Amino acid sequence: MMNFIIDVDGVMTTGQFLYDSKGKSHKIFGPHDSDGLKLIKDKMNIQFISADKRGFPISKRRIEDMGYPIELVPEASRFDFIKNKWGFQNTIYMGDGIFDAPILKACTFGIAPQNARQEAKKSANFVTYSKSAEGAVCDACMEIKKRFLGDHEKL
Amino acid sequence: MMNFIIDVDGVMTTGQFLYDSKGKSHKIFGPHDSDGLKLIKDKMNIQFISADKRGFPISKRRIEDMGYPIELVPEASRFDFIKNKWGFQNTIYMGDGIFDAPILKACTFGIAPQNARQEAKKSANFVTYSKSAEGAVCDACMEIKKRFLGDHEKL
Amino acid sequence: MMNFIIDVDGVMTTGQFLYDSKGKSHKIFGPHDSDGLKLIKDKMNIQFISADKRGFPISKRRIEDMGYPIELVPEASRFDFIKNKWGFQNTIYMGDGIFDAPILKACTFGIAPQNARQEAKKSANFVTYSKSAEGAVCDACMEIKKRFLGDHEKL
Amino acid sequence: MMNFIIDVDGVMTTGQFLYDSKGKSHKIFGPHDSDGLKLIKDKMNIQFISADKRGFPISKRRIEDMGYPIELVPEASRFDFIKNKWGFQNTIYMGDGIFDAPILKACTFGIAPQNARQEAKKSANFVTYSKSAEGAVCDACMEIKKRFLGDHEKL
Repeated sequence: MMNFIIDVDGVMTTGQFLYDSKGKSHKIFGPHDSDGLKLIKDKMNIQFISADKRGFPISKRRIEDMGYPIELVPEASRFDFIKNKWGFQNTIYMGDGIFDAPILKACTFGIAPQNARQEAKKSANFVTYSKSAEGAVCDACMEIKKRFLGDHEKL
Repeated sequence: MMNFIIDVDGVMTTGQFLYDSKGKSHKIFGPHDSDGLKLIKDKMNIQFISADKRGFPISKRRIEDMGYPIELVPEASRFDFIKNKWGFQNTIYMGDGIFDAPILKACTFGIAPQNARQEAKKSANFVTYSKSAEGAVCDACMEIKKRFLGDHEKL
Repeated sequence: MMNFIIDVDGVMTTGQFLYDSKGKSHKIFGPHDSDGLKLIKDKMNIQFISADKRGFPISKRRIEDMGYPIELVPEASRFDFIKNKWGFQNTIYMGDGIFDAPILKACTFGIAPQNARQEAKKSANFVTYSKSAEGAVCDACMEIKKRFLGDHEKL
Repeated sequence: MMNFIIDVDGVMTTGQFLYDSKGKSHKIFGPHDSDGLKLIKDKMNIQFISADKRGFPISKRRIEDMGYPIELVPEASRFDFIKNKWGFQNTIYMGDGIFDAPILKACTFGIAPQNARQEAKKSANFVTYSKSAEGAVCDACMEIKKRFLGDHEKL
């Protein structure tokens, strides 16, 4: 099975987060992505990663509520983490930030949300029609289904 | 009287929801929809449904605050629920997701918000001018009033 | 002095509000509006009104924090409230909803935010460049300053 | 080293803030800005300022979490604060409001986010591609790196 590794912030969320006087309190997740992941989860290894230590309890809660694994990987070690643990050859990666650009290039297939940084979009093989937290991961799942799972039938 | 069945998430809300470290905490509802529903509520059976089990206490609270009934219906059984309980022939349905597409086709009149998934918009008879939580349900009520309630007078 | 009567929801806020399982919890206010109001507050009677009973403690808190008066006026009695308490002739009104349309027409000068309902925008004398909670009230203050306060100098 | 002075609200945040019945509770920060600042922080004096007294504990918490200094400076004294403490000649300023316009003009280089007030954008040397809390400060850092840090290499 192929691997689908998904960055959380700015991909599953709007990228935005709420702060109150005690710290980072909330993240904003969106519709459709959970529906899209259901269509491919039996045919792919799905793994979420996040570099956001401060907001990790929030991300962990959401991703585990959906039933997927998540790991905290600092930006500096993200490239090597994917290289060593998953390998680039069998891996689809979805990310949105300036530090995601080299990973998007190295993986077999790189996906960036519509509202990703230009640096990430230029390094991606596929840019989604939707913005993050407006269906970007659902778009990605539809594209993966068509391209890699031999599933050309309409939904 | 005709039935107007409305999906909550992504129709009455932006589709987005807030998470904190303890789980799904808030949903974002919008203006105008309550005003629009007031214009047709005496001439239609209005029913809300939601497939979001985890966020159901939030949806239930909002919909019941407005004075309408809401029922939790899992996506897998939504088609049959509407078929058996309401029938498709006398029913207008408003939904936004990939699993709403067949229901939008089956009902007498299907409505999708401007920011619905393409799959839903293609199956709808009417796509609203406004996005969800920016007046989409108000747009739908205006259209229903004009088309089904014989009310051509200006507001 | 002229009166400037401003609806809160969808004018000072995005129109959106957050719900948790206990009810309406937060509203989203925006930048620039407080700055704009400061420029005209010594030359106009500024009054806020809201029809949102459930969210009134939130609106009241924000408006009073800024130092302006606010009154809860149900939609059904809003037209007569303004007519009897303020009169239409000396009054500028800013609103965004379908029930604001007749008031926008009756007042000396009607203002609608960029993202107001078409029904309100068609009845307004001036539609702001900005959406609500993105500077719509600031735009309105600039226009009022130029048109009614004889102040043509640049800021 | 040059100084980079950054207004918080509407530059690091969407400009919007949440209110509940007890007051200003949350601000909305965005992605990419912390990444961008990391690229220049060893070569610039970075200083945040805010005129928002009521929301200062929230802004302070976020900016200090990122490891930068922040100071509360009322709008009326902001111009003189920068002039006396930092000087305009060696200073880059980023702001979005109507009261930021004269400072943007006085500083060596003025930057406004895409969604700033027209008054600020007209007084700026550079308007970012992104809106605030969608990467505006990251855009600013990229531009500063290219223009002032002699760093023309691609990221």
